[in-house]
Amino acid sequence: MKKRLGPVERLYPMPCALVVGGLIEEPGVLAVAWINIVASTPPTVALGLRESRHTLELIRHTGTFTVNLPPASLVEAVDYCGLVSGRSADKFGETGLTLVPGSVVPTPIIAECPFNLECRISDEVEVGAYRVILGEIVEAHADEELLLDPDGSLIDVEKLDPLVYIPGTREYRRLGEKVADAFSVGKPL
Amino acid sequence: MKKRLGPVERLYPMPCALVVGGLIEEPGVLAVAWINIVASTPPTVALGLRESRHTLELIRHTGTFTVNLPPASLVEAVDYCGLVSGRSADKFGETGLTLVPGSVVPTPIIAECPFNLECRISDEVEVGAYRVILGEIVEAHADEELLLDPDGSLIDVEKLDPLVYIPGTREYRRLGEKVADAFSVGKPL
Repeated sequence: MKKRLGPVERLYPMPCALVVGGLIEEPGVLAVAWINIVASTPPTVALGLRESRHTLELIRHTGTFTVNLPPASLVEAVDYCGLVSGRSADKFGETGLTLVPGSVVPTPIIAECPFNLECRISDEVEVGAYRVILGEIVEAHADEELLLDPDGSLIDVEKLDPLVYIPGTREYRRLGEKVADAFSVGKPL
Repeated sequence: MKKRLGPVERLYPMPCALVVGGLIEEPGVLAVAWINIVASTPPTVALGLRESRHTLELIRHTGTFTVNLPPASLVEAVDYCGLVSGRSADKFGETGLTLVPGSVVPTPIIAECPFNLECRISDEVEVGAYRVILGEIVEAHADEELLLDPDGSLIDVEKLDPLVYIPGTREYRRLGEKVADAFSVGKPL
């Protein structure tokens, strides 16, 4: 039997990204689970942010942001970035996360995150008290030791060990075992 | 050392949802990894679809769609729904997935998926060859045996056993072990 839950804002699972706005001298960082790719031509990411967020002001100022994927070992730092506002806390000082320049946009990337996207705002949509920011991905970076082939761009997701966010019960998880290859296991049907 | 990958459309991990459009008499279904929540007031989901998708036509016709989360045991059916077009195949006949009426919107939900969202299109944004569909979540359903408390709305994500999609290496995975409680583990910092 199915039970009606009412209009809950949940989907399983969600990623867990650190979104950076601003410049190296005045950066902002935010833990964001409401983020995903939405297009490939051009490569585009969408994220939902409350209008009141300090990092959103910084993102609008340069028109750029970076998306940084933390490994599970950084869970305390990630949670801290979701708990406090950049208006009142020095999130980089408290967490020990360090910033390094990206290659294309003026907003820096987080050195301790082994996968990073550099993005330029392409659109912004108002949704109640939230803003959906669409960003064109203009460059991506990965730590070399994650690559399955040194000349390629495919990532060993077990080495990446990304944090996964579960809404509702509000827990961080790891990625689990492989079930099947996509665009393959359904062919017999 | 970080390596530049170019502008790749990847984020880790992604969910794996079956998005249904249309009516019970003429339904369409699509496997969608480019989907997430983007706002809570009102509860809103965003997904990216190629403009040419058959299911997008059906979604626009009623202005509604449903999001259905398949368990890992349905991996063949899910993969099949991503491999073929509804224009040429009877996806429900081939996979054995069955539709039941939702409570609010005219588009049905998938009975075999233990978590379902009913959505009404609130906005549509053009991004190159893609369309980002924003949908207000007007109702949600879960199988009763997933609920942590029969009177509540919290879901046991281990019982849900959602499929997780990994782009690039194109694999389906399960969810892994719990790492920590969110809005909690970062407090000592």
